[in-house]
Amino acid sequence: MNLPGNHPLAAGLTSESALVRAFRGHPPRISGDLRHTPVWFMRQAGRSLPEYRALREGVAMLDSCLDPAMASEITLQPVRRHGVDAGIFFSDIVVPLLLAGVEVDIVPGTGPVFAEPVRTAADVARLRPLEAGALDPVAEGVARTVEALGSTPLIGFAGAPFTLASYLVEGGPSKDQLRARTLMHADPSTWTALMDWAADVTGAFLRAQVLAGASAAQLFDSWAGSLSLADYETHVAPASRRALSHVSDLDVPVVHFGTGTSELLVAMRDVGADVVGVDHRIGLAEANRRLGGTTPVQGNIDPALLGAPWPVLEAHVRDVLAQGAQAPAHVLNLGHGVPPGTDPDVLTRVVALAHGES
Amino acid sequence: MNLPGNHPLAAGLTSESALVRAFRGHPPRISGDLRHTPVWFMRQAGRSLPEYRALREGVAMLDSCLDPAMASEITLQPVRRHGVDAGIFFSDIVVPLLLAGVEVDIVPGTGPVFAEPVRTAADVARLRPLEAGALDPVAEGVARTVEALGSTPLIGFAGAPFTLASYLVEGGPSKDQLRARTLMHADPSTWTALMDWAADVTGAFLRAQVLAGASAAQLFDSWAGSLSLADYETHVAPASRRALSHVSDLDVPVVHFGTGTSELLVAMRDVGADVVGVDHRIGLAEANRRLGGTTPVQGNIDPALLGAPWPVLEAHVRDVLAQGAQAPAHVLNLGHGVPPGTDPDVLTRVVALAHGES
Repeated sequence: MNLPGNHPLAAGLTSESALVRAFRGHPPRISGDLRHTPVWFMRQAGRSLPEYRALREGVAMLDSCLDPAMASEITLQPVRRHGVDAGIFFSDIVVPLLLAGVEVDIVPGTGPVFAEPVRTAADVARLRPLEAGALDPVAEGVARTVEALGSTPLIGFAGAPFTLASYLVEGGPSKDQLRARTLMHADPSTWTALMDWAADVTGAFLRAQVLAGASAAQLFDSWAGSLSLADYETHVAPASRRALSHVSDLDVPVVHFGTGTSELLVAMRDVGADVVGVDHRIGLAEANRRLGGTTPVQGNIDPALLGAPWPVLEAHVRDVLAQGAQAPAHVLNLGHGVPPGTDPDVLTRVVALAHGES
Repeated sequence: MNLPGNHPLAAGLTSESALVRAFRGHPPRISGDLRHTPVWFMRQAGRSLPEYRALREGVAMLDSCLDPAMASEITLQPVRRHGVDAGIFFSDIVVPLLLAGVEVDIVPGTGPVFAEPVRTAADVARLRPLEAGALDPVAEGVARTVEALGSTPLIGFAGAPFTLASYLVEGGPSKDQLRARTLMHADPSTWTALMDWAADVTGAFLRAQVLAGASAAQLFDSWAGSLSLADYETHVAPASRRALSHVSDLDVPVVHFGTGTSELLVAMRDVGADVVGVDHRIGLAEANRRLGGTTPVQGNIDPALLGAPWPVLEAHVRDVLAQGAQAPAHVLNLGHGVPPGTDPDVLTRVVALAHGES
């Protein structure tokens, strides 16, 4: 199956955007002395924006994700404010689990907390697939957003199976995913069953966003950095490949990102990603070298620098841009999500810098 | 200054132990088919042992560290039980901060929490050096322990300046040391002053343990894995070197360890360590290759495997031993601390395996 004919990418509305061009490996357009590097920020829609905090007042996180009008408005806020080159759909990686019937809440200051951890073969057997129509609120939110965005591409996203499985096994966030990593070795068949379930649920979530109009997709494997390369390749990569297979027949570029993954960059690309997201721990020049010089990269402003004086941050961003220019293509981003306390004006200024306006 | 003549290492009591020999780069002794690889476990003294939990009942963590008899007894418990090749002095990396007058408590389930975070030049200026005699309870605890250990070496330890400074700036544990890493870039002179203070306090803590009889020393940089190599080298390594300079005139081997530090192994050795501790994310063979094949390594059983069935764990330990055998010398350990829920019998069995007894 290809993208529907009225999809923004198929219709040519976003295919020549700076973001999609970079994700497809094309160098940025240069007009005069101005080099326009596309830029967006992980967690750009969220707590750093006063208009977000106002809108979310009294609304629980997961409720806001499942309200198409609210999710759409939140997605649009940073695009309007900063002039970033893409929206990223406002949701949460646990949303598809919730829609598949898993009891989960997002506790402010903690993260997702599950009523019943999934730790045995019987626990895994109780997990249900997504029912028809379950993802409708997501698709509706995406469709509304895409219509409002016009020629600015929307990025759909999903959590990778390992990160979702880790949350499910631990019952919530954990420091080093110890229980999940024990299960992977102690009971590989239960682990594989859990990972395959997670791959299909999160893959369907990603596919729904793309079919509803997202022009690119990002898979977040937040916790992959706790794994050795050997464990990643044996116990994780097959399920990540399976998750991405849900969108592989649709012609949209896919980004794969995790933190602390400098040893895993090639393996994370090779599950089926077109672009590799890089965190702040390794320079983009070195990341590009490890990737063989053929893969577009995304990243990697150190979020800690957003709180430093502008000259310090500016020098850092210029260094990131210079290193990114060594790769076939570069989308500027942070090396992790926007910290909640970030001054939004700083992000706007970074966008101007990436667009060659300062 | 050299070690006092009655120091166990100077007196020859521990200098031929398997641990000290390995830390100095000598291969293990082999008798018949038995190859004795020295082994100890980070956090071997602690919550995994029922005798520890009984002794600590009703005693706050930092009080137990400052009670020489209790700290000594806790240190000895795992040596008696498991037959490990070394004791590691029971204390906490924040103990020297407490003894220097910093108000800190260890909150169960959270970690160290500071009454007043240190974030400005004025905050740093208020920090005081250790007063004479402040470390006496530590020295007394070590001296008691060393006497009881006889020919089994005691390892002294201390936290590295970056980890201590991160706690001080954040006011407690944090996910990615964001505030500390902001300060390092935003106000490098305040950062350096804080790091130098931490280096001297923690260096004095380490020196007190060595002078009181510890035959080796380990510097823990728990959070170094949140740093890029460039940031480590510029903003962290000088203070770690300064901390280790406090024991460099004493002829004891020094181990340097952090988690998520596969990119930093060489830099962490080059601040003055003899041995590099490796976490579970990278194989010892690869670590040895990165270190140029000339540095003894310590590690790196994945703590997650301690909860797996014995055949799975045994195969993993044998693989770690085989990889470690490629280095000039190898001390078996975990890739991180003993998880609190670990079955102590499993650790005893791992010791027997390392000692060629199973």
